[in-house]
Amino acid sequence: KEGVLNICGNMANKLIFRQLFEMKSCTYTFLLACPITRKAIIIDPVIEMVERDSDIIRQLDLDLIYGANTHIHADHVTGTGELKRIFPKMKSVLSKFSEGKADVLLNDREMLKFGSENLEARTTPGHTNGCMTYISHAHRMAFTGDTLLIRGCGRTDFQQGNSKMLYKMIHEKILSLPDDFAIYPGHDYKGLTQSSVAEEKKFNPRLTRNLDEFIEIMKNLKLAYPAQIDKSLPANKVCGLYELMDEGTKAKVRPKGA
Amino acid sequence: KEGVLNICGNMANKLIFRQLFEMKSCTYTFLLACPITRKAIIIDPVIEMVERDSDIIRQLDLDLIYGANTHIHADHVTGTGELKRIFPKMKSVLSKFSEGKADVLLNDREMLKFGSENLEARTTPGHTNGCMTYISHAHRMAFTGDTLLIRGCGRTDFQQGNSKMLYKMIHEKILSLPDDFAIYPGHDYKGLTQSSVAEEKKFNPRLTRNLDEFIEIMKNLKLAYPAQIDKSLPANKVCGLYELMDEGTKAKVRPKGA
Repeated sequence: KEGVLNICGNMANKLIFRQLFEMKSCTYTFLLACPITRKAIIIDPVIEMVERDSDIIRQLDLDLIYGANTHIHADHVTGTGELKRIFPKMKSVLSKFSEGKADVLLNDREMLKFGSENLEARTTPGHTNGCMTYISHAHRMAFTGDTLLIRGCGRTDFQQGNSKMLYKMIHEKILSLPDDFAIYPGHDYKGLTQSSVAEEKKFNPRLTRNLDEFIEIMKNLKLAYPAQIDKSLPANKVCGLYELMDEGTKAKVRPKGA
Repeated sequence: KEGVLNICGNMANKLIFRQLFEMKSCTYTFLLACPITRKAIIIDPVIEMVERDSDIIRQLDLDLIYGANTHIHADHVTGTGELKRIFPKMKSVLSKFSEGKADVLLNDREMLKFGSENLEARTTPGHTNGCMTYISHAHRMAFTGDTLLIRGCGRTDFQQGNSKMLYKMIHEKILSLPDDFAIYPGHDYKGLTQSSVAEEKKFNPRLTRNLDEFIEIMKNLKLAYPAQIDKSLPANKVCGLYELMDEGTKAKVRPKGA
Protein backbone atom coordinates (compact mmCIF):
# COMPACT_ATOMS: atom_id res chain seq x y z
CA LYS A 1 0.00 0.00 0.00
CA GLU A 2 2.71 2.44 1.06
CA GLY A 3 6.16 3.24 -0.11
CA VAL A 4 8.42 5.41 -2.11
CA LEU A 5 8.80 2.88 -4.86
CA ASN A 6 5.37 3.16 -6.32
CA ILE A 7 5.68 4.81 -9.69
CA CYS A 8 5.16 1.79 -11.92
CA GLY A 9 1.51 1.29 -11.13
CA ASN A 10 2.33 -2.36 -10.55
CA MET A 11 1.57 -3.53 -7.03
CA ALA A 12 3.99 -6.42 -7.27
CA ASN A 13 6.84 -3.99 -7.81
CA LYS A 14 6.19 -1.87 -4.75
CA LEU A 15 8.45 -2.48 -1.83
CA ILE A 16 7.09 -1.32 1.51
CA PHE A 17 9.97 0.71 2.83
CA ARG A 18 10.62 2.94 5.81
CA GLN A 19 13.79 4.66 6.93
CA LEU A 20 13.74 5.46 10.65
CA PHE A 21 16.16 7.63 12.62
CA GLU A 22 17.34 7.58 16.24
CA MET A 23 18.74 10.98 17.21
CA LYS A 24 21.05 10.16 20.14
CA SER A 25 23.30 7.73 18.27
CA CYS A 26 22.26 9.09 14.81
CA THR A 27 21.34 5.53 13.79
CA TYR A 28 19.22 4.56 10.81
CA THR A 29 16.86 1.61 11.13
CA PHE A 30 15.22 0.20 8.01
CA LEU A 31 11.93 -1.60 7.66
CA LEU A 32 11.32 -3.49 4.41
CA ALA A 33 8.30 -5.60 3.55
CA CYS A 34 6.76 -7.57 0.73
CA PRO A 35 3.51 -5.88 -0.38
CA ILE A 36 1.83 -9.19 -1.22
CA THR A 37 2.57 -11.34 1.84
CA ARG A 38 3.30 -8.43 4.27
CA LYS A 39 6.36 -10.41 5.47
CA ALA A 40 8.89 -7.91 6.82
CA ILE A 41 12.49 -7.49 7.92
CA ILE A 42 13.88 -4.81 10.21
CA ILE A 43 17.56 -3.85 9.95
CA ASP A 44 19.45 -2.33 12.92
CA PRO A 45 16.63 -1.46 15.34
CA VAL A 46 17.57 0.63 18.41
CA ILE A 47 16.31 -0.37 21.87
CA GLU A 48 15.00 3.12 22.80
CA MET A 49 12.83 3.19 19.65
CA VAL A 50 11.14 -0.22 19.94
CA GLU A 51 7.76 1.28 20.81
CA ARG A 52 7.83 3.56 17.75
CA ASP A 53 9.00 0.72 15.51
CA SER A 54 6.48 -1.83 16.77
CA ASP A 55 3.66 0.73 16.36
CA ILE A 56 4.60 1.22 12.70
CA ILE A 57 4.93 -2.54 12.12
CA ARG A 58 1.44 -3.10 13.56
CA GLN A 59 -0.16 -0.15 11.80
CA LEU A 60 1.25 -1.22 8.43
CA ASP A 61 -0.09 -4.70 9.21
CA LEU A 62 3.29 -6.36 8.69
CA ASP A 63 4.39 -9.86 9.63
CA LEU A 64 7.88 -9.31 11.04
CA ILE A 65 9.99 -12.41 10.36
CA TYR A 66 13.59 -11.13 10.60
CA GLY A 67 15.43 -8.70 12.83
CA ALA A 68 18.88 -8.33 11.30
CA ASN A 69 21.87 -6.41 12.59
CA THR A 70 24.58 -5.29 10.18
CA HIS A 71 27.15 -5.94 12.95
CA ILE A 72 27.73 -5.97 16.71
CA HIS A 73 27.08 -2.28 17.39
CA ALA A 74 29.27 -0.40 19.86
CA ASP A 75 27.28 2.84 19.96
CA HIS A 76 23.80 1.67 20.86
CA VAL A 77 21.96 -1.39 22.15
CA THR A 78 20.02 -3.24 19.46
CA GLY A 79 16.23 -3.36 19.67
CA THR A 80 16.20 -6.96 18.39
CA GLY A 81 15.70 -8.52 21.83
CA GLU A 82 12.73 -6.34 22.76
CA LEU A 83 11.19 -6.79 19.30
CA LYS A 84 11.42 -10.57 19.73
CA ARG A 85 9.35 -10.28 22.91
CA ILE A 86 6.66 -8.34 20.99
CA PHE A 87 6.83 -10.37 17.75
CA PRO A 88 7.83 -13.89 18.90
CA LYS A 89 7.97 -15.25 15.33
CA MET A 90 10.80 -12.87 14.47
CA LYS A 91 14.23 -14.47 14.01
CA SER A 92 17.38 -12.58 14.96
CA VAL A 93 20.04 -12.46 12.24
CA LEU A 94 23.80 -11.85 12.33
CA SER A 95 26.85 -12.71 10.28
CA LYS A 96 28.40 -16.06 11.20
CA PHE A 97 31.69 -14.15 11.56
CA SER A 98 30.32 -11.80 14.23
CA GLU A 99 31.08 -13.95 17.30
CA GLY A 100 27.49 -13.30 18.31
CA LYS A 101 24.47 -15.51 19.03
CA ALA A 102 21.46 -15.31 16.73
CA ASP A 103 18.69 -17.51 15.34
CA VAL A 104 20.16 -17.18 11.85
CA LEU A 105 23.92 -16.87 11.25
CA LEU A 106 24.50 -15.84 7.66
CA ASN A 107 27.36 -16.78 5.39
CA ASP A 108 28.66 -14.62 2.53
CA ARG A 109 26.18 -14.28 -0.38
CA GLU A 110 23.35 -15.96 1.51
CA MET A 111 19.82 -14.71 0.71
CA LEU A 112 17.26 -13.53 3.25
CA LYS A 113 13.80 -14.11 1.78
CA PHE A 114 10.70 -12.26 3.02
CA GLY A 115 7.68 -13.09 0.88
CA SER A 116 8.41 -12.28 -2.74
CA GLU A 117 11.27 -9.98 -1.71
CA ASN A 118 14.84 -10.79 -0.74
CA LEU A 119 18.13 -9.32 0.40
CA GLU A 120 21.57 -10.66 -0.44
CA ALA A 121 23.93 -10.63 2.55
CA ARG A 122 27.53 -9.85 1.69
CA THR A 123 30.21 -10.11 4.34
CA THR A 124 32.07 -6.79 4.42
CA PRO A 125 34.50 -7.00 7.37
CA GLY A 126 36.90 -4.21 8.27
CA HIS A 127 34.97 -2.08 10.76
CA THR A 128 34.21 -5.31 12.65
CA ASN A 129 34.75 -8.95 11.63
CA GLY A 130 31.02 -9.57 11.45
CA CYS A 131 29.97 -6.62 9.27
CA MET A 132 27.36 -7.42 6.63
CA THR A 133 25.95 -5.36 3.78
CA TYR A 134 22.38 -6.27 2.76
CA ILE A 135 21.54 -5.73 -0.91
CA SER A 136 18.18 -5.51 -2.69
CA HIS A 137 19.00 -6.14 -6.33
CA ALA A 138 15.36 -5.69 -7.39
CA HIS A 139 15.09 -2.26 -5.80
CA ARG A 140 18.72 -1.25 -6.31
CA MET A 141 19.52 -0.50 -2.67
CA ALA A 142 22.43 -1.43 -0.40
CA PHE A 143 22.20 -1.26 3.40
CA THR A 144 25.82 -0.84 4.34
CA GLY A 145 25.73 -0.52 8.14
CA ASP A 146 28.93 1.12 9.39
CA THR A 147 31.06 -0.24 6.56
CA LEU A 148 30.34 2.56 4.08
CA LEU A 149 28.92 5.85 5.39
CA ILE A 150 27.92 8.85 3.23
CA ARG A 151 31.25 10.50 2.31
CA GLY A 152 32.86 8.42 5.06
CA CYS A 153 33.28 4.89 6.43
CA GLY A 154 33.32 3.01 9.72
CA ARG A 155 36.25 3.51 12.11
CA THR A 156 38.86 0.76 12.24
CA ASP A 157 40.60 1.44 15.56
CA PHE A 158 38.86 -1.11 17.77
CA GLN A 159 36.66 -4.28 17.63
CA GLN A 160 38.87 -6.13 15.09
CA GLY A 161 39.07 -3.02 12.92
CA ASN A 162 41.26 -3.48 9.85
CA SER A 163 41.71 -0.58 7.41
CA LYS A 164 43.18 -2.67 4.60
CA MET A 165 40.31 -5.14 4.79
CA LEU A 166 37.69 -2.36 4.95
CA TYR A 167 39.11 -0.68 1.84
CA LYS A 168 39.15 -3.95 -0.07
CA MET A 169 35.62 -4.96 0.97
CA ILE A 170 34.04 -1.58 0.14
CA HIS A 171 35.61 -1.57 -3.31
CA GLU A 172 35.01 -5.24 -4.12
CA LYS A 173 31.56 -5.77 -2.66
CA ILE A 174 29.78 -2.38 -2.54
CA LEU A 175 31.30 0.08 -5.01
CA SER A 176 31.31 -2.71 -7.62
CA LEU A 177 27.50 -2.47 -7.74
CA PRO A 178 25.97 -0.43 -10.60
CA ASP A 179 26.30 3.36 -10.23
CA ASP A 180 22.62 3.98 -9.56
CA PHE A 181 22.34 1.66 -6.54
CA ALA A 182 21.25 3.72 -3.53
CA ILE A 183 23.47 3.54 -0.44
CA TYR A 184 21.64 3.51 2.90
CA PRO A 185 24.18 3.73 5.74
CA GLY A 186 23.81 2.74 9.39
CA HIS A 187 24.41 6.31 10.56
CA ASP A 188 24.58 9.85 9.38
CA TYR A 189 25.55 12.81 11.50
CA LYS A 190 24.62 15.61 9.06
CA GLY A 191 21.04 14.63 8.26
CA LEU A 192 21.77 13.02 4.90
CA THR A 193 19.46 10.06 4.32
CA GLN A 194 21.01 8.34 1.31
CA SER A 195 23.76 8.33 -1.26
CA SER A 196 24.55 6.27 -4.35
CA VAL A 197 27.39 4.12 -5.61
CA ALA A 198 28.25 6.76 -8.25
CA GLU A 199 28.53 9.50 -5.65
CA GLU A 200 30.68 7.55 -3.22
CA LYS A 201 33.01 6.48 -6.04
CA LYS A 202 33.40 10.13 -7.03
CA PHE A 203 33.15 12.14 -3.79
CA ASN A 204 34.03 9.94 -0.80
CA PRO A 205 37.08 11.73 0.60
CA ARG A 206 38.56 8.49 1.95
CA LEU A 207 37.63 5.83 -0.60
CA THR A 208 38.79 7.88 -3.60
CA ARG A 209 42.37 7.75 -2.20
CA ASN A 210 44.76 4.84 -2.74
CA LEU A 211 45.12 2.11 -0.11
CA ASP A 212 48.20 3.58 1.57
CA GLU A 213 46.65 7.02 1.88
CA PHE A 214 43.44 5.45 3.19
CA ILE A 215 45.33 3.52 5.88
CA GLU A 216 47.10 6.75 6.90
CA ILE A 217 43.82 8.68 7.12
CA MET A 218 42.22 5.96 9.23
CA LYS A 219 45.25 5.89 11.56
CA ASN A 220 44.92 9.61 12.32
CA LEU A 221 41.20 10.06 12.97
CA LYS A 222 41.65 10.49 16.75
CA LEU A 223 38.08 9.51 17.57
CA ALA A 224 36.67 9.35 21.09
CA TYR A 225 35.96 5.98 22.73
CA PRO A 226 32.25 5.15 22.13
CA ALA A 227 30.26 6.21 25.21
CA GLN A 228 28.00 3.17 25.30
CA ILE A 229 30.49 0.46 24.25
CA ASP A 230 30.74 -1.27 27.64
CA LYS A 231 27.07 -2.09 27.76
CA SER A 232 26.45 -2.26 24.00
CA LEU A 233 28.97 -4.95 23.06
CA PRO A 234 27.91 -7.65 25.54
CA ALA A 235 24.22 -6.90 24.92
CA ASN A 236 24.56 -6.91 21.15
CA LYS A 237 26.54 -10.15 21.06
CA VAL A 238 23.30 -11.86 22.08
CA CYS A 239 21.13 -9.63 19.82
CA GLY A 240 19.86 -7.73 22.85
CA LEU A 241 18.17 -10.86 24.25
CA TYR A 242 17.77 -10.24 27.95
CA GLU A 243 17.70 -13.87 29.00
CA LEU A 244 21.10 -14.53 27.40
CA MET A 245 22.92 -11.65 29.13
CA ASP A 246 25.04 -11.83 32.26
CA GLU A 247 23.70 -10.03 35.34
CA GLY A 248 25.85 -6.91 34.95
CA THR A 249 24.75 -6.35 31.36
CA LYS A 250 21.10 -7.03 32.23
CA ALA A 251 21.12 -4.25 34.82
CA LYS A 252 22.56 -1.74 32.34
CA VAL A 253 20.41 -2.61 29.36
CA ARG A 254 16.80 -3.10 30.42
CA PRO A 255 14.76 -0.05 29.44
CA LYS A 256 12.63 1.68 32.06
CA GLY A 257 9.34 -0.05 32.81
CA ALA A 258 10.16 -3.23 30.87
CA LYS B 1 21.47 9.02 -12.01
CA GLU B 2 20.45 8.76 -8.37
CA GLY B 3 17.22 8.28 -6.55
CA VAL B 4 14.87 6.01 -4.79
CA LEU B 5 12.43 5.92 -7.63
CA ASN B 6 14.49 3.89 -10.01
CA ILE B 7 12.88 0.51 -10.32
CA CYS B 8 11.28 0.87 -13.73
CA GLY B 9 14.50 0.88 -15.69
CA ASN B 10 13.16 3.96 -17.49
CA MET B 11 15.37 6.99 -16.98
CA ALA B 12 12.54 9.40 -17.78
CA ASN B 13 10.61 8.07 -14.82
CA LYS B 14 13.34 8.60 -12.25
CA LEU B 15 12.96 11.58 -10.02
CA ILE B 16 16.17 12.73 -8.37
CA PHE B 17 15.10 12.99 -4.75
CA ARG B 18 16.77 13.69 -1.42
CA GLN B 19 15.28 14.07 2.00
CA LEU B 20 17.55 16.07 4.31
CA PHE B 21 17.25 16.57 8.07
CA GLU B 22 18.26 19.39 10.42
CA MET B 23 18.54 18.11 13.98
CA LYS B 24 18.08 21.26 16.08
CA SER B 25 14.63 22.18 14.75
CA CYS B 26 13.92 18.64 13.44
CA THR B 27 13.21 20.12 10.01
CA TYR B 28 13.03 18.19 6.76
CA THR B 29 14.36 19.82 3.60
CA PHE B 30 13.61 18.21 0.24
CA LEU B 31 15.58 18.37 -2.96
CA LEU B 32 13.83 17.25 -6.16
CA ALA B 33 15.23 17.35 -9.67
CA CYS B 34 14.43 16.35 -13.21
CA PRO B 35 16.86 13.62 -14.36
CA ILE B 36 16.90 14.87 -17.95
CA THR B 37 17.44 18.62 -17.56
CA ARG B 38 18.91 18.51 -13.99
CA LYS B 39 16.61 21.45 -13.09
CA ALA B 40 15.96 21.33 -9.36
CA ILE B 41 13.79 22.69 -6.58
CA ILE B 42 14.61 22.79 -2.88
CA ILE B 43 11.77 22.91 -0.34
CA ASP B 44 12.26 24.39 3.15
CA PRO B 45 16.05 24.75 3.37
CA VAL B 46 17.50 25.67 6.81
CA ILE B 47 20.14 28.41 7.08
CA GLU B 48 22.56 26.36 9.21
CA MET B 49 22.61 23.59 6.57
CA VAL B 50 23.25 25.68 3.45
CA GLU B 51 26.81 24.40 3.06
CA ARG B 52 25.67 20.78 3.19
CA ASP B 53 22.79 21.45 0.80
CA SER B 54 24.86 23.41 -1.72
CA ASP B 55 27.52 20.67 -1.69
CA ILE B 56 24.91 18.07 -2.61
CA ILE B 57 23.37 20.31 -5.29
CA ARG B 58 26.80 20.81 -6.90
CA GLN B 59 27.86 17.17 -6.57
CA LEU B 60 24.63 15.94 -8.15
CA ASP B 61 25.26 18.50 -10.92
CA LEU B 62 21.86 20.13 -10.45
CA ASP B 63 20.60 23.44 -11.81
CA LEU B 64 18.72 24.93 -8.86
CA ILE B 65 15.88 27.11 -10.15
CA TYR B 66 13.46 27.31 -7.20
CA GLY B 67 13.81 27.66 -3.44
CA ALA B 68 10.30 27.21 -2.05
CA ASN B 69 9.11 27.55 1.51
CA THR B 70 5.93 25.82 2.61
CA HIS B 71 5.20 28.82 4.88
CA ILE B 72 6.77 31.58 6.99
CA HIS B 73 8.60 29.36 9.50
CA ALA B 74 8.67 30.35 13.16
CA ASP B 75 11.13 27.71 14.35
CA HIS B 76 14.12 28.23 12.09
CA VAL B 77 15.52 30.73 9.61
CA THR B 78 15.13 29.65 5.99
CA GLY B 79 18.25 28.91 3.93
CA THR B 80 16.66 30.46 0.84
CA GLY B 81 18.53 33.78 1.13
CA GLU B 82 21.97 32.18 1.46
CA LEU B 83 21.20 29.72 -1.35
CA LYS B 84 20.29 32.65 -3.62
CA ARG B 85 23.76 34.11 -3.02
CA ILE B 86 25.34 30.79 -4.07
CA PHE B 87 22.92 30.01 -6.92
CA PRO B 88 21.88 33.44 -8.27
CA LYS B 89 19.48 31.93 -10.82
CA MET B 90 17.34 30.46 -8.04
CA LYS B 91 13.94 32.09 -7.50
CA SER B 92 12.41 32.25 -4.03
CA VAL B 93 8.85 30.96 -3.81
CA LEU B 94 6.05 31.57 -1.29
CA SER B 95 2.27 31.51 -1.21
CA LYS B 96 0.69 34.83 -2.21
CA PHE B 97 -1.26 34.59 1.05
CA SER B 98 1.89 34.50 3.19
CA GLU B 99 2.39 38.26 3.62
CA GLY B 100 5.99 37.61 2.60
CA LYS B 101 8.21 38.83 -0.23
CA ALA B 102 9.43 36.34 -2.83
CA ASP B 103 10.34 36.19 -6.52
CA VAL B 104 7.35 33.93 -7.16
CA LEU B 105 4.10 34.27 -5.19
CA LEU B 106 1.93 31.23 -5.89
CA ASN B 107 -1.82 31.05 -6.07
CA ASP B 108 -3.88 27.94 -5.26
CA ARG B 109 -3.40 25.06 -7.76
CA GLU B 110 -0.52 26.79 -9.55
CA MET B 111 2.19 24.51 -10.99
CA LEU B 112 5.91 24.80 -10.37
CA LYS B 113 7.73 23.32 -13.35
CA PHE B 114 11.36 22.13 -13.18
CA GLY B 115 12.39 20.46 -16.42
CA SER B 116 10.03 17.61 -17.20
CA GLU B 117 8.89 17.48 -13.58
CA ASN B 118 6.37 19.60 -11.73
CA LEU B 119 4.72 20.20 -8.37
CA GLU B 120 1.19 21.41 -7.81
CA ALA B 121 0.94 24.04 -5.07
CA ARG B 122 -2.21 23.83 -2.99
CA THR B 123 -2.98 26.52 -0.43
CA THR B 124 -3.58 24.78 2.91
CA PRO B 125 -3.98 27.59 5.50
CA GLY B 126 -4.70 26.89 9.16
CA HIS B 127 -1.25 26.66 10.75
CA THR B 128 -0.44 29.99 9.04
CA ASN B 129 -2.35 31.89 6.34
CA GLY B 130 0.38 31.25 3.79
CA CYS B 131 0.78 27.46 4.20
CA MET B 132 1.23 25.54 0.96
CA THR B 133 1.31 21.81 0.23
CA TYR B 134 3.38 20.83 -2.82
CA ILE B 135 2.20 17.73 -4.67
CA SER B 136 3.96 15.51 -7.20
CA HIS B 137 1.17 13.63 -8.93
CA ALA B 138 3.61 11.68 -11.13
CA HIS B 139 5.57 10.37 -8.15
CA ARG B 140 2.65 10.27 -5.72
CA MET B 141 4.17 12.44 -3.01
CA ALA B 142 2.85 15.37 -0.98
CA PHE B 143 5.16 17.81 0.84
CA THR B 144 2.87 19.08 3.55
CA GLY B 145 5.09 21.47 5.53
CA ASP B 146 3.64 22.01 9.01
CA THR B 147 0.04 21.54 7.88
CA LEU B 148 -0.01 17.74 8.23
CA LEU B 149 2.65 16.04 10.33
CA ILE B 150 3.04 12.27 10.82
CA ARG B 151 0.28 11.35 13.32
CA GLY B 152 -0.02 15.07 14.08
CA CYS B 153 -0.49 18.52 12.56
CA GLY B 154 0.79 22.07 12.87
CA ARG B 155 -0.14 24.11 15.96
CA THR B 156 -2.85 26.74 15.54
CA ASP B 157 -2.25 28.99 18.55
CA PHE B 158 -0.28 31.81 16.90
CA GLN B 159 0.58 33.31 13.47
CA GLN B 160 -3.03 33.39 12.19
CA GLY B 161 -3.60 29.83 13.40
CA ASN B 162 -7.14 28.57 12.81
CA SER B 163 -8.09 25.05 13.85
CA LYS B 164 -11.33 24.91 11.88
CA MET B 165 -9.57 26.01 8.70
CA LEU B 166 -6.68 23.56 9.26
CA TYR B 167 -9.07 20.62 9.70
CA LYS B 168 -10.97 21.55 6.53
CA MET B 169 -7.84 22.07 4.43
CA ILE B 170 -6.19 18.81 5.49
CA HIS B 171 -9.32 16.82 4.71
CA GLU B 172 -10.20 18.60 1.46
CA LYS B 173 -6.79 19.10 -0.07
CA ILE B 174 -4.44 16.43 1.34
CA LEU B 175 -6.39 13.44 2.67
CA SER B 176 -8.51 13.54 -0.50
CA LEU B 177 -5.46 12.33 -2.45
CA PRO B 178 -5.27 8.59 -3.27
CA ASP B 179 -4.39 6.36 -0.32
CA ASP B 180 -0.93 5.44 -1.58
CA PHE B 181 0.35 9.03 -1.86
CA ALA B 182 3.39 9.42 0.41
CA ILE B 183 3.26 12.23 2.98
CA TYR B 184 6.53 14.08 3.57
CA PRO B 185 6.09 16.53 6.45
CA GLY B 186 8.14 19.63 7.34
CA HIS B 187 9.20 18.14 10.67
CA ASP B 188 9.32 14.96 12.63
CA TYR B 189 10.43 14.65 16.22
CA LYS B 190 10.54 10.83 16.47
CA GLY B 191 12.74 10.05 13.46
CA LEU B 192 9.93 9.02 11.13
CA THR B 193 10.71 10.05 7.56
CA GLN B 194 7.40 9.55 5.78
CA SER B 195 3.79 8.48 6.05
CA SER B 196 0.96 7.95 3.57
CA VAL B 197 -2.55 9.28 3.03
CA ALA B 198 -4.01 5.89 4.05
CA GLU B 199 -2.12 5.88 7.33
CA GLU B 200 -3.01 9.42 8.34
CA LYS B 201 -6.67 8.80 7.51
CA LYS B 202 -6.59 5.73 9.75
CA PHE B 203 -4.13 6.53 12.54
CA ASN B 204 -3.77 10.31 12.95
CA PRO B 205 -4.99 10.82 16.53
CA ARG B 206 -6.26 14.33 15.76
CA LEU B 207 -7.58 14.14 12.21
CA THR B 208 -9.61 10.99 12.80
CA ARG B 209 -11.75 12.95 15.33
CA ASN B 210 -14.70 15.16 14.38
CA LEU B 211 -14.24 18.91 13.94
CA ASP B 212 -15.41 19.87 17.45
CA GLU B 213 -13.14 17.32 19.11
CA PHE B 214 -10.26 18.47 16.91
CA ILE B 215 -10.77 22.12 17.93
CA GLU B 216 -10.84 21.07 21.59
CA ILE B 217 -7.60 19.06 21.24
CA MET B 218 -5.85 21.98 19.52
CA LYS B 219 -7.01 24.38 22.23
CA ASN B 220 -5.41 22.29 24.95
CA LEU B 221 -1.97 21.48 23.55
CA LYS B 222 -0.15 23.89 25.92
CA LEU B 223 2.91 24.22 23.69
CA ALA B 224 5.90 26.40 24.51
CA TYR B 225 6.51 29.64 22.59
CA PRO B 226 8.92 28.84 19.71
CA ALA B 227 12.45 29.73 20.82
CA GLN B 228 13.55 31.29 17.54
CA ILE B 229 10.31 33.06 16.55
CA ASP B 230 11.50 36.64 17.12
CA LYS B 231 14.29 36.36 14.60
CA SER B 232 12.71 33.73 12.34
CA LEU B 233 9.51 35.55 11.42
CA PRO B 234 11.00 38.84 10.16
CA ALA B 235 13.82 36.97 8.39
CA ASN B 236 11.50 34.46 6.74
CA LYS B 237 9.04 37.10 5.54
CA VAL B 238 11.76 38.14 3.09
CA CYS B 239 12.82 34.53 2.36
CA GLY B 240 15.98 35.01 4.44
CA LEU B 241 17.30 37.66 2.03
CA TYR B 242 19.78 39.69 4.03
CA GLU B 243 19.47 42.88 1.99
CA LEU B 244 15.72 43.06 2.61
CA MET B 245 15.94 42.74 6.41
CA ASP B 246 15.87 45.56 8.95
CA GLU B 247 19.08 46.14 10.94
CA GLY B 248 17.92 44.30 14.06
CA THR B 249 17.02 41.16 12.13
CA LYS B 250 20.23 41.30 10.09
CA ALA B 251 22.33 41.23 13.26
CA LYS B 252 20.46 38.16 14.58
CA VAL B 253 20.36 36.14 11.39
CA ARG B 254 23.68 36.32 9.61
CA PRO B 255 25.55 33.03 10.12
CA LYS B 256 29.11 33.10 11.44
CA GLY B 257 31.73 33.94 8.82
CA ALA B 258 29.22 35.07 6.19
